[in-house]
Amino acid sequence: MQHDKYISIREAAYKANMQLPKLGLVLFTFGNASAADHQLGVFAIKPSGVPYEDLSPEKMVIVDFDGKTIDGKLHPSSDTKTHAVLYKHWPKVGGIVHTHSTYATAWAQTQLDIPIFGTTHADHNTVDIPCAPPMTDEMIRGDYEHQTGFQIMNCLSEKKLSYEEVEMILVGNHAPFTWGKTCDKAVYNSAVLESIAEMAFLTKQIRPDAPRLKDSLIKKHFERKHGPDSYYGQ
Amino acid sequence: MQHDKYISIREAAYKANMQLPKLGLVLFTFGNASAADHQLGVFAIKPSGVPYEDLSPEKMVIVDFDGKTIDGKLHPSSDTKTHAVLYKHWPKVGGIVHTHSTYATAWAQTQLDIPIFGTTHADHNTVDIPCAPPMTDEMIRGDYEHQTGFQIMNCLSEKKLSYEEVEMILVGNHAPFTWGKTCDKAVYNSAVLESIAEMAFLTKQIRPDAPRLKDSLIKKHFERKHGPDSYYGQ
Amino acid sequence: MQHDKYISIREAAYKANMQLPKLGLVLFTFGNASAADHQLGVFAIKPSGVPYEDLSPEKMVIVDFDGKTIDGKLHPSSDTKTHAVLYKHWPKVGGIVHTHSTYATAWAQTQLDIPIFGTTHADHNTVDIPCAPPMTDEMIRGDYEHQTGFQIMNCLSEKKLSYEEVEMILVGNHAPFTWGKTCDKAVYNSAVLESIAEMAFLTKQIRPDAPRLKDSLIKKHFERKHGPDSYYGQ
Amino acid sequence: MQHDKYISIREAAYKANMQLPKLGLVLFTFGNASAADHQLGVFAIKPSGVPYEDLSPEKMVIVDFDGKTIDGKLHPSSDTKTHAVLYKHWPKVGGIVHTHSTYATAWAQTQLDIPIFGTTHADHNTVDIPCAPPMTDEMIRGDYEHQTGFQIMNCLSEKKLSYEEVEMILVGNHAPFTWGKTCDKAVYNSAVLESIAEMAFLTKQIRPDAPRLKDSLIKKHFERKHGPDSYYGQ
Repeated sequence: MQHDKYISIREAAYKANMQLPKLGLVLFTFGNASAADHQLGVFAIKPSGVPYEDLSPEKMVIVDFDGKTIDGKLHPSSDTKTHAVLYKHWPKVGGIVHTHSTYATAWAQTQLDIPIFGTTHADHNTVDIPCAPPMTDEMIRGDYEHQTGFQIMNCLSEKKLSYEEVEMILVGNHAPFTWGKTCDKAVYNSAVLESIAEMAFLTKQIRPDAPRLKDSLIKKHFERKHGPDSYYGQ
Repeated sequence: MQHDKYISIREAAYKANMQLPKLGLVLFTFGNASAADHQLGVFAIKPSGVPYEDLSPEKMVIVDFDGKTIDGKLHPSSDTKTHAVLYKHWPKVGGIVHTHSTYATAWAQTQLDIPIFGTTHADHNTVDIPCAPPMTDEMIRGDYEHQTGFQIMNCLSEKKLSYEEVEMILVGNHAPFTWGKTCDKAVYNSAVLESIAEMAFLTKQIRPDAPRLKDSLIKKHFERKHGPDSYYGQ
Repeated sequence: MQHDKYISIREAAYKANMQLPKLGLVLFTFGNASAADHQLGVFAIKPSGVPYEDLSPEKMVIVDFDGKTIDGKLHPSSDTKTHAVLYKHWPKVGGIVHTHSTYATAWAQTQLDIPIFGTTHADHNTVDIPCAPPMTDEMIRGDYEHQTGFQIMNCLSEKKLSYEEVEMILVGNHAPFTWGKTCDKAVYNSAVLESIAEMAFLTKQIRPDAPRLKDSLIKKHFERKHGPDSYYGQ
Repeated sequence: MQHDKYISIREAAYKANMQLPKLGLVLFTFGNASAADHQLGVFAIKPSGVPYEDLSPEKMVIVDFDGKTIDGKLHPSSDTKTHAVLYKHWPKVGGIVHTHSTYATAWAQTQLDIPIFGTTHADHNTVDIPCAPPMTDEMIRGDYEHQTGFQIMNCLSEKKLSYEEVEMILVGNHAPFTWGKTCDKAVYNSAVLESIAEMAFLTKQIRPDAPRLKDSLIKKHFERKHGPDSYYGQ
């Protein structure tokens, strides 16, 4: 039953899911991480409603990019179709994480983008963190999780943002999704987003008219970490 | 002195009480959990004022649905009569939890319902978390904890809510009560309520006029977890 | 050099001081607890500026009620004279704690009393937590810590409060002091005050015009725990 | 390759860096501490982007006061030039710490000084914590981290503050820097600043027009800890 070819994404997804409670990003089972293998056209994802302490690499469910379960005895996360749609359209994404982390979810509930107030934000994104509007009633009544994936892609597209540049989004009234080239990077982005969301909340409370970061600083900080001449890290 | 027939509710109540400090829901002894056996017409509840680290299943007090102690050397929680009234009127409730958790208690102190701002809330309730108004002076001067139970039931009744659908409430100026089919579910609901209360606080701070979640999303999310076609969990 | 007769207050003070970081009430050395022996007319208090992890019962400094060191090689806490004055005038107080805990200190910085918003507060006090006004320049320039003790007593006296009923106070622009019949009770009161202060902050943020708790509930809750017919605890 | 003469600053810098996550001041690698040897004209600093759990004294990078790496296989922190400039101009500073701690960074994002609201602040500084304005576009486009050092010095100079009296600053839209005679003191200052920043946030939320601490109290508290007649500590 266990297919060797899935071992690496099973382990990546397992490890990523186990990071979520450690980083304080999930309560009970309110979150899920997945790891994709674009060669095989599948991803490994957390089984639905299973407590983190009961997980193991073997319990990760293998699903294809149409959301069909390929291997595993357990039901995959109820958000599986959102992951599937995004992997299908985003060939360079190796991991996706969804949480209901406190501050990011509060921002999602306001339906507001998170303004770029400082260099902690600019180190990771050059734009406000986008908040996709809530879906139409028709989309909600239809294939909801599938449509959530399109809502995310449409939001980026309308704001002329690329999924390779912006690796995090809020889904209005729902909660954040993050992604990255690897599953580890997607987890990292979830923690970074939560930190940015908390700082932006505090900034607005202290000074409701706090100005956005100026363009030269946005550019400088992002390029320190990500530009062709980046000089952060080893 | 120890009655075998109470072992299962003693252990359930003990385990539930021990979860409360672990989940960050209580300071010192400010909380209590109980587990009922409707066949026997009794419940096991935390003894009053005993630190969590000194508890054991044997120290749980067995009380009947009129609030009379049936077994146990210690005094039961001072909130015992509230638990008793609710078990007496709610045949399908197997566990009740009362805490003074920070955010839920702050909302109770405002005497406001917690608005349904997002899907984290909708995953568990289709309505605003009700806040029962403070009791009349007459009720307070009378059998206070007994009346607290009726205040909870009256609030649900006035809002046309069923205790089977809504498993959490705020008692105005006091603190939250939660319940469930099992004691574990009541503990789970206490932690979920605290998380919802924190997110709703943040949402209102960031955007004071944040809109309530729209009906189609409320319906969709609740049915994912609870409807006849629910697809969350295993 | 070590006097047997002080062992019990040394150990009580040591144990109380060690609770402060565990309860999240102090950063570094920003707090001190003392335990008094009114028979001997002395108290044991934390040495000044010594990290909690380096403390031992032997390092507690024995001081008389005029603030004079009776036994111990280390300098006592810089707040020692405040403790001394209070013990001298309050024969029924066995322990005093001073911290700069986050929420209580923030309230002290506003120079506002903490309004009684709910039963968590009423379980411990029937009045708003008083905030003593900042001292006059003359008092500050004089024997500052000694005067802090009088500022606390004057505030209670002006509000016609007894130190036996109200066991916690904010010193305006400074931070909280708590006390109790025992040192353990004073520590307990510090943690309770911090929790009340946090909930009151949140209550005011959610609803700036939140009403004070009504008198019947204040009376009921306080008497549950403290009246002649109290029925909380064993 | 390992030079004995750097052992003491390597160990000091290593120990200081390891304190940052323990004190809750950094997420992932968002912070760096350095320790200087003014005799040798060098400092030891955290390598860039290396997780704290992978650090060791040997991995600290030795850099001179012009920002040139003297010893070490790894790239030094991307903020190295800011440290270098400050050491070059501040002969009495033995350690510098930079974090993106939550509350201090939120204040930096508001571009506001942190008002001196209470004695917790006055115990460490007699003035509002200065917030250096964001740099000009020209400075940002130039040698950014080098210029950050000058921005810090210019801010102190314009406010007529000495780096020996004020050991902490916010860089507008960026985050805090702290320093001290030793590396340990710089770490201590980072934690103190975060605590002061949180209390000031809360104070402003509870009472937007909270008054600054009056001069006599500022003077008294600072002198208790730092004046020629200080009586805090051993």
